[in-house]
Amino acid sequence: MFESAEIGHEVSKKTYREQEPALRQALLEAQYRLLEQAHFPVVILVNGVDGAGKGETVNLLNEWMDPRHIRTEGFGPASPEETERPTLWRFWRALPPKGRIGILFGSWYTEPILSRVLGRAKRAAFQHELERIRHFERMLVAEGTLVIKLWFHLSHPAQKKRLESLEKDPHTRWRVTPEDWKRYRHYEEFVSVCEGALRETSTGEAPWHVVDGSEPRYRSLFVGRLILDALTRRLNGPPPAVSPPPPPPTPPIDGRDVLNTLDYSLRLPRVRYEKRLEREQARLNQLTRDPRMRNRSLAIVFEGMDAAGKGSTIRRITQALDARFYRVIPVAAPTDEERAQPYLWRFWRHLPRRGHAVIFDRSWYGRVLVERVEGFCSEADWMRGYPEINDFEEQLAEAGVIVAKFWLAITPEEQLRRFREREETPHKQFKITPDDWRNREKWPAYERAVSDMVARTSTDIARWEVIAAEDKLHGRIDVLERLNRLVGRALDAG
Amino acid sequence: MFESAEIGHEVSKKTYREQEPALRQALLEAQYRLLEQAHFPVVILVNGVDGAGKGETVNLLNEWMDPRHIRTEGFGPASPEETERPTLWRFWRALPPKGRIGILFGSWYTEPILSRVLGRAKRAAFQHELERIRHFERMLVAEGTLVIKLWFHLSHPAQKKRLESLEKDPHTRWRVTPEDWKRYRHYEEFVSVCEGALRETSTGEAPWHVVDGSEPRYRSLFVGRLILDALTRRLNGPPPAVSPPPPPPTPPIDGRDVLNTLDYSLRLPRVRYEKRLEREQARLNQLTRDPRMRNRSLAIVFEGMDAAGKGSTIRRITQALDARFYRVIPVAAPTDEERAQPYLWRFWRHLPRRGHAVIFDRSWYGRVLVERVEGFCSEADWMRGYPEINDFEEQLAEAGVIVAKFWLAITPEEQLRRFREREETPHKQFKITPDDWRNREKWPAYERAVSDMVARTSTDIARWEVIAAEDKLHGRIDVLERLNRLVGRALDAG
Repeated sequence: MFESAEIGHEVSKKTYREQEPALRQALLEAQYRLLEQAHFPVVILVNGVDGAGKGETVNLLNEWMDPRHIRTEGFGPASPEETERPTLWRFWRALPPKGRIGILFGSWYTEPILSRVLGRAKRAAFQHELERIRHFERMLVAEGTLVIKLWFHLSHPAQKKRLESLEKDPHTRWRVTPEDWKRYRHYEEFVSVCEGALRETSTGEAPWHVVDGSEPRYRSLFVGRLILDALTRRLNGPPPAVSPPPPPPTPPIDGRDVLNTLDYSLRLPRVRYEKRLEREQARLNQLTRDPRMRNRSLAIVFEGMDAAGKGSTIRRITQALDARFYRVIPVAAPTDEERAQPYLWRFWRHLPRRGHAVIFDRSWYGRVLVERVEGFCSEADWMRGYPEINDFEEQLAEAGVIVAKFWLAITPEEQLRRFREREETPHKQFKITPDDWRNREKWPAYERAVSDMVARTSTDIARWEVIAAEDKLHGRIDVLERLNRLVGRALDAG
Repeated sequence: MFESAEIGHEVSKKTYREQEPALRQALLEAQYRLLEQAHFPVVILVNGVDGAGKGETVNLLNEWMDPRHIRTEGFGPASPEETERPTLWRFWRALPPKGRIGILFGSWYTEPILSRVLGRAKRAAFQHELERIRHFERMLVAEGTLVIKLWFHLSHPAQKKRLESLEKDPHTRWRVTPEDWKRYRHYEEFVSVCEGALRETSTGEAPWHVVDGSEPRYRSLFVGRLILDALTRRLNGPPPAVSPPPPPPTPPIDGRDVLNTLDYSLRLPRVRYEKRLEREQARLNQLTRDPRMRNRSLAIVFEGMDAAGKGSTIRRITQALDARFYRVIPVAAPTDEERAQPYLWRFWRHLPRRGHAVIFDRSWYGRVLVERVEGFCSEADWMRGYPEINDFEEQLAEAGVIVAKFWLAITPEEQLRRFREREETPHKQFKITPDDWRNREKWPAYERAVSDMVARTSTDIARWEVIAAEDKLHGRIDVLERLNRLVGRALDAG
């Protein structure tokens, strides 16, 4: 993989002087076309061997292009705020919006590779990380992002020479750290791990480009042209095809699904409700104050047809909680900052810190519900939504987030009754809009979408709890009981 | 100040049961009117004596109203991310957008008061903090925010009774900490400091409301009504008048100002430019790698007429820097998330961490330049902009941020020459827009705005450097030299 980067490429001063101005000019123009179109973001990953010119290249790109529209992020060890979230959180935060270029100096590859080289991560864990990265990058590309992955290579002797020459010059001495020499001594293991990582993550949609880092002029022209080509191709054409998702699920032959087989006759009398409500709320309060909760966090998702009782159920939960413990995120139309990012970005930004809870009133499942039914995204988009969502929730779970998902189910008849009631009650009229009546006409399409959603995203990690909410009182208690059971078990499991 | 909160208010169970439902209903309706109008945000501060029912009230408000549209933030000790920024940074981050309610449990008062009670802050420092808070709240109100400040009071014996009864009940025992008892012992000092603080910050636009915390039913109805009244009044009418700013500055009688008295004939030959550029860039690079820089950060502001050379000057600076050290923020139209916040919010969000730099290509000075000249805001708005900006920069400076501000000055003739050049150069055409020609017609108005800006915001803390940029080469070197001098002195001064 690295052989062709060790044969010793070189570019003469003369050639460089001849070619550099035009390249620079073309890059700047491409950058401005990108900015004006604002159709997609560009992510450039800068990784590789120490001393191979990563830092110089990052600076050069900022010099060649307009640095005002480039967001350069260097990643060192994670900050406390970052370690309290899934590992990809800080990279999501650093993603450039459409029209901009993000240069990630060090990236989502750095930590997994180092952990593996230093023996902190087992082979299986490493493979798992690489698979996660493949999914992440595939999602980025499918969302339109141009991903350019640069690997700066240097042979072992060349690295030694380079580090020594940097150390000799008083102006550059600061750039060589004891860490660099330590990694130099681990060169063989490092390169071997990297080679595997590159091979397994060099996908059709986001391939690696190995850069010979030994000679600055060659390296600079090579990288410049590579970026220019990729940018020009993408500006003039569609994004690379991501392998197509499977065809949409066929509906069950017998017409039975999780919704129409639910027992909607379950009722809970008011007196028993009050008692159980008090008990379950006390239990929930206790659980959230459990010392073991300090290392966990909680993401609760509510979905359901209009008027299914999401708001009132959420209030029964929040009544039991310390107001500092939780935040409710009502999910409506995205803001323009959110629209300039991949679909899941607006949910990543709200992820709870340790010891905290976030309650989503509607959620990332909009992708496979309203967006699917209303045709706001293509079939390919919502079909890839299922694995993307499963990935997302897996990352939450691995970071210690307890994920609870509730579908509040009611019948169309009950919905109609509630709509009418809302219309007739002065202080509830604001809750009913023409949209609600329109959505109601699409009930069968929604029902099918819900059924597919449960089939594809109810996982061991984050199971869907389908609640018969025809009777509000029964529904609320059922939610609280299941939530308590889930949280209790998660805390016991450690 | 607290006497009337100690006379023992009480509400019977019967009265509470009669009044609570209507109050609750009215609050919910007001909240929805707020949400639909989305004209202003509401900030509710919850402060006061331990055990006076602050937490219960926060929970109650979340229960009475729709918690999905309330953002509750509890403030404990500052996180590392927060301590690296000015103290108000974390409160800016917690401000609710227009249409929403933010409940701040603990607020910008907590830390200054505690520091004073524990003797960590001297009287003068405390007074300074209070003045800062007055300015901050006045700005919030002037920007349209409804600020409701609640102070929960309890007499010393009542506090003792309350803490003991909380400790007796196993369900509430967790809420009493050793800290609470420690503060109980300091009750007299605490209340005395608080009384002074309340007196000095009970302004016409953001008065304090003292709540008798001894009896829950009275307390709840009192707070509920108070919020309902404030909300209703504001929904039906204009914000309270903030004392009017002074009249706009009169132009100098002799017509001389900082711009027209500048020597535009300064020139630097290319050969000398190259040499000095290299020297100054090396010096800047050294300064940013100085170990003392790790505890400081750097905010560089560039303003100037169109085509004054901001972009190319910024590039000469960034060429000298490690790409991980800085970020360039080009300031254009605000996003919708920014529009839903006070004017300065969009700049606060970009403040650098320690050891980092942010370069603003245009800045918060837009308020007193383009917004003034184009009439995007009222005269009162841009007039209050001057002290608001000075406050902002003072906070930056106190947090260790080195603030450098450059006005790049050119003559109208030179601008015309550069516009024409841009039009004639293919790869520069994207840089010239009809807006540029329109702005040009308003040159005299801009010149007056610049002159006022320099007169009012060139302070000891953050001086304006007015640069003769008629000759680009001279301008760039002048900027670099002054920047180096400024940073060098700041590091020497510690």
